[in-house]
Amino acid sequence: MESYSSKAEYLEALEARSKLPEGFRCSTVPITFQPEEKPSDEPYKMNLSLIVLDEATPLFGGVYTRNAFPGFPVILGRQRLKNKTARGVLINNRIANVGAPGGLEDAEGLLGRLASMIDCSEQELFTASTGVIGWRLPTAEMTNALEPLLNGLGAESVFPVSRAIMTTDSYAKVRNMAVGEGRILAVAKGAGMIEPNMATMLVFILTDLQLPRPVLRKALEWCVNRTFNRITIDGDQSTSDTVLIFSSGRKPPVEEEEFREALFSVCWKLAEDIVRNGEGTCHVMRVRVAGATDRETALGAAKAVANSPLVKTAVFGNDPNVGRILSALGDYLGSRERKIDLEFLSIALGGTTVFDGGRFTLSSETEVTLNRYITECAVQSSETGFPEHNRTVDIDVILGEGKGEATVLGSDLSYGYVKENAEYRS
Amino acid sequence: MESYSSKAEYLEALEARSKLPEGFRCSTVPITFQPEEKPSDEPYKMNLSLIVLDEATPLFGGVYTRNAFPGFPVILGRQRLKNKTARGVLINNRIANVGAPGGLEDAEGLLGRLASMIDCSEQELFTASTGVIGWRLPTAEMTNALEPLLNGLGAESVFPVSRAIMTTDSYAKVRNMAVGEGRILAVAKGAGMIEPNMATMLVFILTDLQLPRPVLRKALEWCVNRTFNRITIDGDQSTSDTVLIFSSGRKPPVEEEEFREALFSVCWKLAEDIVRNGEGTCHVMRVRVAGATDRETALGAAKAVANSPLVKTAVFGNDPNVGRILSALGDYLGSRERKIDLEFLSIALGGTTVFDGGRFTLSSETEVTLNRYITECAVQSSETGFPEHNRTVDIDVILGEGKGEATVLGSDLSYGYVKENAEYRS
Repeated sequence: MESYSSKAEYLEALEARSKLPEGFRCSTVPITFQPEEKPSDEPYKMNLSLIVLDEATPLFGGVYTRNAFPGFPVILGRQRLKNKTARGVLINNRIANVGAPGGLEDAEGLLGRLASMIDCSEQELFTASTGVIGWRLPTAEMTNALEPLLNGLGAESVFPVSRAIMTTDSYAKVRNMAVGEGRILAVAKGAGMIEPNMATMLVFILTDLQLPRPVLRKALEWCVNRTFNRITIDGDQSTSDTVLIFSSGRKPPVEEEEFREALFSVCWKLAEDIVRNGEGTCHVMRVRVAGATDRETALGAAKAVANSPLVKTAVFGNDPNVGRILSALGDYLGSRERKIDLEFLSIALGGTTVFDGGRFTLSSETEVTLNRYITECAVQSSETGFPEHNRTVDIDVILGEGKGEATVLGSDLSYGYVKENAEYRS
Repeated sequence: MESYSSKAEYLEALEARSKLPEGFRCSTVPITFQPEEKPSDEPYKMNLSLIVLDEATPLFGGVYTRNAFPGFPVILGRQRLKNKTARGVLINNRIANVGAPGGLEDAEGLLGRLASMIDCSEQELFTASTGVIGWRLPTAEMTNALEPLLNGLGAESVFPVSRAIMTTDSYAKVRNMAVGEGRILAVAKGAGMIEPNMATMLVFILTDLQLPRPVLRKALEWCVNRTFNRITIDGDQSTSDTVLIFSSGRKPPVEEEEFREALFSVCWKLAEDIVRNGEGTCHVMRVRVAGATDRETALGAAKAVANSPLVKTAVFGNDPNVGRILSALGDYLGSRERKIDLEFLSIALGGTTVFDGGRFTLSSETEVTLNRYITECAVQSSETGFPEHNRTVDIDVILGEGKGEATVLGSDLSYGYVKENAEYRS
C-alpha cells in the first residue's frame, strides 16, 4: 500500500516520477487577466503550459468527451487527430473555451502564432482548456506569454506542468512506468469539479516507445474505456474531457500486449489519483458488480451505486447504511425493467457480507465493524494537500444472473464538495 | 403566489385544508422501541397511523415504485390492488420493512390482527412503511398500539396523520380541492431523504366522488406520470414509493375529464410541496425542455439538468453558472449519441436568455441580474419549518429539433442535504 506522511514526502515522490521520456520538452508561465463576463476587483490568474516534441511525430492519438456540446479545443483536436503528424499541446486552466463567441478562432489564432514561433505547421498543434464555460480566452495576454513559454522549455521534468494545470486539485498527479528500454509518463488534472465550473479531466500521456500508430491508438482506447471511463465523481461528462498520447519513438518497440498492460497500469493509478483528489473527496469507493447478464448492465449498476447521492453521503458520514446500496441497485435495474431474483443477490461491504439469500444479514456487531472499516478508509487530502494512503471503500455486488462484470471508482459526497461547487467560481 | 410569514400561519392554512371527505376516519399513535440491528442508548420513536373507510369500497387504486427491490408493503400492496374491495391503510415511519428477515410475515400479521379488530378481510387492508432499510418492524409494540389507534379514530381531519407520517420532513403537506359536490384530499410525506435512509415518498389520496374504478385508476396513473414522476431530489427511486387512492363513493360523480384535471392540480401542488421540503432544499428548480425530437428525450434532458450535482450546487450558491446547464445537457444528449445543432439551441434562466444562436450571451450585467434572481427564489424552510413562498428557479431549454416537451421539478444541493444524509440515521 502507498502511504505518505507529509506533503513534502508526497511532492518528493511525485518529482521522482516526473522525468520526461526522451524527445519531449515542457514549460509553463503564469498570466493575469480580467474576464469581460464577470465583474471583479482582483485580476484572475491562469497558467499557460506547453508540452512539445523535439520533432513532429506520426505517433499520437486522443480520446475526447462524448458530451454533445464539446469545447472548441475538443472540436479542433478531433479534426487534428486525422493529420499525419503532431508536435505538441498548449494547455490553459481557468477558462474552458466552450460556447464563447469567437472561441474557435481564438484557439486557432493562438496555435497559429505558436506554430510560426517554433516553425511547425499549425495543424500539428493541439490545445486543451479547462475552467469556466461561456467565457472568452484572454488571447492578448496568452499571446504575450508565448515567448517566455518557449524560452522556459526544459527536457527534465513534467513536474512544473503537473502543478500548473491544477485548478481546484489539491495536489498534482503524475504516474510513470518503465517499459522495455523506454518509459510511459502520464500527467493529469483531476475531474470532479476541477475549476469549480467544470468536472473536466485532462490527461497527457508521453512515451518514447516506438510503436505503430494503430497500436498506440488501439491501446489508448482500450485503456481509457477501462480506467478513465470507469471513474465517476459528478456523474457528469464534461464538455472538455481530454486524453492525449504522444510518442517520440526514440526507444525500441515492445510487444503490443506488454505496452497495453503497462499503459493500463499507469492509467488506472492516475484514474484512482483523480478520484481521490476529487473536490471534497474523503473516501474513494470501489464498486464491483459481477454476475450481471452482460457487461453493460454490470457497468450501469456499478455506476448507479457509485453515483447515488444517498450512498455517497452515507459513506462520507462513515455510516454503513447498506440499505441504500440495495435501493440504488433496485432503482437502476427496475427502471430498465430487469427483474432480479433476490435469492441470488449478494452484497458485501469491505469483505463483510451484508445481504445474502434474499435478506439483509445485519447485527449490532456488523454495524460497529463496518463503521470502523469506512472510518479507516477516509482521507483528508483536500485539507492536507496530499493523499495519505490509497485505501478504498470496497462494495461488491453479485447479481447471480450471468457473467457480466464491471468495476468503477467513485467518491463520496461531502460538505467540501458542496462548498467548492456552490461558493467559488473564480 | 402563495406565501406564509410564520409557521403558525402555515399550520393554520394546512389545518384548513385537512378536512376528511365523507366516509373516512383516521388516527395516529406514537410508539417507542429498540431496534435489534443497531446499538443505541435511547429508544427509537415511530408513529403508527391508520386511514380507514367506514365501509369497504371497490373504488381504489395505487401506483408503486419501479425499484427492482421493493419493500414488503409494496409487494403486498401490488397483490391487493387486484382484490375487489379495500378498507384502508396502516402506515408507519422509521422502518421501511425492506429486505428484513420475516418482513412479509410481519406485515401480513399486523394487517391480520387489525382486520380481526375492525371486522374486515385482511385482504382489504394495505400497509405503507418508510424509514431504514434492512431492519425488522417492532411488531410486538405495533400490535399493542392497534387498540389505542382504533379508539382514536376521528372523521374530522387528516391533519394529525399528515404530521405523524413525517420523518425528516420539516413541515406537513396536505392539498385539497372541491370538485362537483365532493372533494379530493391528498396527504404526503416527502421524498428526498425522508428518514435519512430512504428517499421515500408516500402519498394518500382520499375522495368521496363516486367514480368507476377504471376511471379512478386511469386518472391516477395519468396524474402520477405527470406530477410525482416529474420530481427529482436524489435521482433515486426508492424501494417504497407509494401513491394510493381511495374513494368512499358518497358523492355524485363528475365528468371523467373534470376529475382528472382536479386530481392533476392537487397532485402537482403536492409534488411541488415535496420538492420544496426535500432535505436541505433551498431552491426549487423548474426545468422545462421543449423542441426535443420526442417527449422521452425532453424528459431525460430535463432530468439530467435537474439532477446534475454541478447545476444543483451552483443554484444553492445563487451562482448563475449557466455553463453547467449546457454541460449537463451535452452529457445527456452526447451519451445517447444525439447530435444537436447548437445554432438552434436556446437556454434561459429566469426568463433571461443566456445562450442563443450558437453562443453564450453573457455580460457583467446579466451576471448581476441572474444572481439576484436566484437569491430571491431561496427558501429556508428546513430551518423555519414552513415554506415562505412558492417561487421556483426557472430553467428553460429549447432544442429546436422537434415537438417533444417535458417539465420537471428538482431541488438544489446544499450543506443541509449532506448533513441530513451523512450524519443521521436515527
